[in-house]
Amino acid sequence: MRRDLAEGILFTDQYQLSMAQLYYRMGLAEREARFEHFFRRYPDYGQHQAGYCISAGLAWFSQWVREARFDDESLEALASHTTDTGARVFGDDFLGWLSDVGDLSALRIEAIPEGRVVHPNVPLTVVEGPLALAQIVETPLLNHINFQTLIATKASRVVEAARGGSVLEFGMRRGPERGTNAASRASLVGGADFTSNVGLSHAVGFPPKGTHAHSMVQVFVALGEGELGAFRAYADVYPDECILLVDTIDTLESGVPNAIEVFRELRAKGHEPVGIRLDSGDLAHLAVQSAKMLDEAGFTDQKIVLSSGLDEITIFQILNQIAIEAPRYGVAPDSVIRRLVYGVGTKLATSEGDPSLDGVYKLVAIDGEGGWRPAIKLSDTPAKIVNPGRKEVHRIYDSRGFATADVVAQAGEQLVPPLRLFHPTEEGVERRLSEADVSGSEQLLEKVDPWSPVDEREAIEAARERRIADLERLDIGVRRLVNPHVYHVSLSQASHELKQEIIEEMRRDM
Amino acid sequence: MRRDLAEGILFTDQYQLSMAQLYYRMGLAEREARFEHFFRRYPDYGQHQAGYCISAGLAWFSQWVREARFDDESLEALASHTTDTGARVFGDDFLGWLSDVGDLSALRIEAIPEGRVVHPNVPLTVVEGPLALAQIVETPLLNHINFQTLIATKASRVVEAARGGSVLEFGMRRGPERGTNAASRASLVGGADFTSNVGLSHAVGFPPKGTHAHSMVQVFVALGEGELGAFRAYADVYPDECILLVDTIDTLESGVPNAIEVFRELRAKGHEPVGIRLDSGDLAHLAVQSAKMLDEAGFTDQKIVLSSGLDEITIFQILNQIAIEAPRYGVAPDSVIRRLVYGVGTKLATSEGDPSLDGVYKLVAIDGEGGWRPAIKLSDTPAKIVNPGRKEVHRIYDSRGFATADVVAQAGEQLVPPLRLFHPTEEGVERRLSEADVSGSEQLLEKVDPWSPVDEREAIEAARERRIADLERLDIGVRRLVNPHVYHVSLSQASHELKQEIIEEMRRDM
Repeated sequence: MRRDLAEGILFTDQYQLSMAQLYYRMGLAEREARFEHFFRRYPDYGQHQAGYCISAGLAWFSQWVREARFDDESLEALASHTTDTGARVFGDDFLGWLSDVGDLSALRIEAIPEGRVVHPNVPLTVVEGPLALAQIVETPLLNHINFQTLIATKASRVVEAARGGSVLEFGMRRGPERGTNAASRASLVGGADFTSNVGLSHAVGFPPKGTHAHSMVQVFVALGEGELGAFRAYADVYPDECILLVDTIDTLESGVPNAIEVFRELRAKGHEPVGIRLDSGDLAHLAVQSAKMLDEAGFTDQKIVLSSGLDEITIFQILNQIAIEAPRYGVAPDSVIRRLVYGVGTKLATSEGDPSLDGVYKLVAIDGEGGWRPAIKLSDTPAKIVNPGRKEVHRIYDSRGFATADVVAQAGEQLVPPLRLFHPTEEGVERRLSEADVSGSEQLLEKVDPWSPVDEREAIEAARERRIADLERLDIGVRRLVNPHVYHVSLSQASHELKQEIIEEMRRDM
Repeated sequence: MRRDLAEGILFTDQYQLSMAQLYYRMGLAEREARFEHFFRRYPDYGQHQAGYCISAGLAWFSQWVREARFDDESLEALASHTTDTGARVFGDDFLGWLSDVGDLSALRIEAIPEGRVVHPNVPLTVVEGPLALAQIVETPLLNHINFQTLIATKASRVVEAARGGSVLEFGMRRGPERGTNAASRASLVGGADFTSNVGLSHAVGFPPKGTHAHSMVQVFVALGEGELGAFRAYADVYPDECILLVDTIDTLESGVPNAIEVFRELRAKGHEPVGIRLDSGDLAHLAVQSAKMLDEAGFTDQKIVLSSGLDEITIFQILNQIAIEAPRYGVAPDSVIRRLVYGVGTKLATSEGDPSLDGVYKLVAIDGEGGWRPAIKLSDTPAKIVNPGRKEVHRIYDSRGFATADVVAQAGEQLVPPLRLFHPTEEGVERRLSEADVSGSEQLLEKVDPWSPVDEREAIEAARERRIADLERLDIGVRRLVNPHVYHVSLSQASHELKQEIIEEMRRDM
């Protein structure tokens, strides 16, 4: 498979190129247009819906934009595409224009930076530039940013559930093929401490993490040296980072006692063991029992890594069960919980429960030769009517300093309290904020220059800091894992009025 | 992001490399080992579980194996990895060995070919060779084959639901980043006719397919030329492949009448329009109404492409509704259904409802210096005990020529009726097949040579033919979309006895 062909400028949907050629033939290819990317609803994982998302994927989308070229190989592929009647789909006129254009450097991009808390119906990414190019870029933009935002959101929820415990992303074996690298990166943006993904870790400057698999114990058992032999070998090779997987044979009867024996030997040699890993069974119960056995053997600070089907709800339930169950065995719950580390795999890397973010990319304005004209898409569903015009996003902070609303305003519109905030779909519903209600505000969209490559490690660290800062200013009710309080996304007065005006105009014309 | 580093030989989990170094230090790195990959349960999409899977992903895994190299860049990354104490994780001894090994050509691979109907607990992929290398390859093998098998399975269900209607994969915009290319390919293996993914299509030799987006209509509306202007432009540029998206403004009041007007103009110029596309609203109802309007205008053969949140169950329901609703409007259901084409996007590319296949890769035998020794992994859950030994898979066909069981046998075991087939987990449950019960059998695993590159188009076409042939020999009850009949996967007598023997032996030793 020719991966370069499949991942370069042709990493898009056929209709984007069909439309681009049409625009070219109609003399509209270079007409300035503005598209905005936004999602319509938070991921909904079955019984529970997210209350916020974490933006991610911009750096990799930027890299794609920077590297994509209308090169000979791509243009030859397009030239070879024929219809059933044998006619060429793309003409030399259009391909010649693409060749002259060369790349996507004519596009201007704005975006809400990675790691920020974001909400529905707010432009996350904005593209302005020649209509044909802005159209072609729809698919790769959505593909990169929808997926990483989805995974960063799930990761953030898992990290919140872990209440300060370390979170490791382990999802590669059942992750979505090459997309698993994006999932590992987005997990780091969303607050996971590390990932087991070796190549991705090195590519973005984080050390990969891992323990060992059941197969290692199986090898030693099959060769007659047993679980104890396997553990001794591991301790021997990794004396300062010895985490032993204790559930290959029987966790409490074999695994933990053998681990303790090897830990004693390690300590006698001057090394402090790191911990054990539990990968099956009732993790809460086994964590309590293992902690008790480790405590009694004098290993009070060793970590207990939990894995196997974890997600934010499972972690929440495990911590709850430990709080109830530990005292029955004379163990202080906190002494168990403080040593837990969470290996979260498939359910994080696939966002199980809701494996896609419904982000869309809509035309909101086009140069009508004499200035921008707002564009709209009507729909029988009011929530699906696209907000017209070139927009900005203002985040308003309340008197406590907490974010209280994201306001979709028109470009250049001044938002000075007292403010009227309009419900985005329910006509007549509005909210007023006085000067005393508002402690501050900021614009969320920033200019992006894809031609200035970023250092991945720095970009991820900066995104992680943004996430923490935004969560500290987000109502605890909105952060709740199940049935969160709904954050306000509103239209400004100018956005509201423009939308009403255009809807009326279009309905008149029909 | 250094994609070459992230997608080459380091596209694996950290613990695979930690174990590989341990095996090296213990003198076991080159010990012959056998791992088998299998999944434990069919994808379960919430209210409905699959009754079979379609194998896919082998060709791309083979490409990864062929291209992966322990090159300087990868080895330098590993050499740079230090623990919290500053010590190097991987020593020069181990890295030197990897460098000498160079690539993965020492591994021997067998697999069930792509496109075949496959079932749980049956080895799909088998790797034999030096223990350390076979271990490293676990993650990339699972990553490639689990995901494509997952998507090919979903595609096959969608294609079965479409009852002969054409299926197009449209999932790129919300698919899992680069993994969406694998999803597009797996959809083709699973029976989708085409994909909208341009780069992937060209890379595997299929023409990409697509229509146009709402944004094209929006452009013309914003510039004062309306939906009709947009449709005319499209018909002008694509006279022989004119499919018009009719729901940007109002499907039945605006879109379909405008499409019919343009279709008449097209036909007057000697071109036959291809059809319309519906992308919102009650698709069944709109399909009936649109078909009626098209019929009345003399466009009886034009296609109606449906899209928007489709999956196998939605398609099933739509066809059902059309069968009930069409006659009320004097329309023959079949005259609607025969013109339907299905654009299936997000729910296919993400396998919504169950976004992962639970495939695992387990050590089943290791060279004990004097021949293979079976390896086992015990578990408190009987279904999770790994079947030991070097195994083969036989598919048994009943007297009608339908597949009646997949039998997990030991390598070289002769399966001659009368056969005793043992339930894989429930002790004492067995089934007997007499000579008259069996019309034939075949072995499913075949040798794979990753160093013989395949032509992608030919590989996919061959896989599609295998799928069709296998489905024709699969009980219709097993193919049912909801609550399918359970296909038999059994242990042969030798597999059954070996498993019992080893479990007893291990329990004795504990």
